[in-house]
Amino acid sequence: MNAKQLAGEKAVEHVKDGMLLGLGTGSTVYWSILKLGDLVKKGLNIKGVPTSTNTEKLAINLGIPLVSLSSINQLDLTIDGADEANRNFELIKGGGGALLREKMVASISRRFITVIDDTKMVTDLGEFPLPVEIIQFGWELTLKQVSELGSKPKLRMDNNAPFITDNGNYILDCYFGKIQDANGLKNTLNMIPGVVENGLFVNMADTIIIGNKNGSVSTLYK
Amino acid sequence: MNAKQLAGEKAVEHVKDGMLLGLGTGSTVYWSILKLGDLVKKGLNIKGVPTSTNTEKLAINLGIPLVSLSSINQLDLTIDGADEANRNFELIKGGGGALLREKMVASISRRFITVIDDTKMVTDLGEFPLPVEIIQFGWELTLKQVSELGSKPKLRMDNNAPFITDNGNYILDCYFGKIQDANGLKNTLNMIPGVVENGLFVNMADTIIIGNKNGSVSTLYK
Repeated sequence: MNAKQLAGEKAVEHVKDGMLLGLGTGSTVYWSILKLGDLVKKGLNIKGVPTSTNTEKLAINLGIPLVSLSSINQLDLTIDGADEANRNFELIKGGGGALLREKMVASISRRFITVIDDTKMVTDLGEFPLPVEIIQFGWELTLKQVSELGSKPKLRMDNNAPFITDNGNYILDCYFGKIQDANGLKNTLNMIPGVVENGLFVNMADTIIIGNKNGSVSTLYK
Repeated sequence: MNAKQLAGEKAVEHVKDGMLLGLGTGSTVYWSILKLGDLVKKGLNIKGVPTSTNTEKLAINLGIPLVSLSSINQLDLTIDGADEANRNFELIKGGGGALLREKMVASISRRFITVIDDTKMVTDLGEFPLPVEIIQFGWELTLKQVSELGSKPKLRMDNNAPFITDNGNYILDCYFGKIQDANGLKNTLNMIPGVVENGLFVNMADTIIIGNKNGSVSTLYK
């Protein structure tokens, strides 16, 4: 069993009958969703809110009942991956481009479990470029304003055209170097008018489940 | 001369030859732009960045040279209207739905003159419902999260369909009652994942020009 599968399946032990679940997106939480599909077939009663069309399709194929984000006030638990996590339970997410929907789901989750393999656990966030979702209009100006915060932003491309998010926006991938004050940077970025949201998740994750190369699993609680 | 015209034309006295100008949108700054058109015909050398397609059309008709927001780093001066202004130079803007582009322009302006008639000058902001631009996806959830801050938000409609901004987003018009801490509210709103931007302009305006019903004009400097 690979490290991602170990972490992904372990998280499902936290799921209880009757829960309303946020279903994340990516190659680690993929294993959580497969496992949930198994348990649903055996009679587990849960409902899920997907964070992407990919996860939505996967859950439908597995027979996991879904509800829309608009119809609910709170989720019992969200399981999602991360591009980087540190010991303060701060995350960088958005490598896949779904950070906005993922953050909306996380913002209404009573509990949030991050599942990662051990290569994603870091001392300092920032080696992975921080994704920042911005509006298309005047994007060059927004790029300048983001770079003035001390980063090297690059417009994310998809072949020869800018990558476009589910919300019709662009993504800047921003190399900041070591991020010392994740909460401050998160807030400062969101104050730039052209910025819609950014991939820093602070005060959201309460549990990190790490699949290790050696076959063991570590669980960190906040 | 009506109160709006008085304020709008007065602001143009601050324009100097060679300036790069942000051109606002609305029924008061309309008079500033007409006046600028006159002066350009007489030889004034300026360039403008419009904050809406309406203003863009008006400026082109008047022969005012335009440049795009993406090609510049800084504006010398922006002249724009407001739906409400107080003595702390805090504004509510966005009744017309262009708050995001207006805030982008304001954010790179060395000086920002607000032109209003005297009915817009208030002791406390908040009688005019605060416009908040939000993404379409999961808008009902975002509405709930905005209402939890103590407001009564209403989705802005355009006939029988939601009003859609130039950026493809929705607008919530939010009645907060008296807004005591405009800066705090501005920041808190922008931290909600589905919120793109809001109509509170804080630390942007440095001059307020007020056209009075009695035919006089008042100018407030910060």
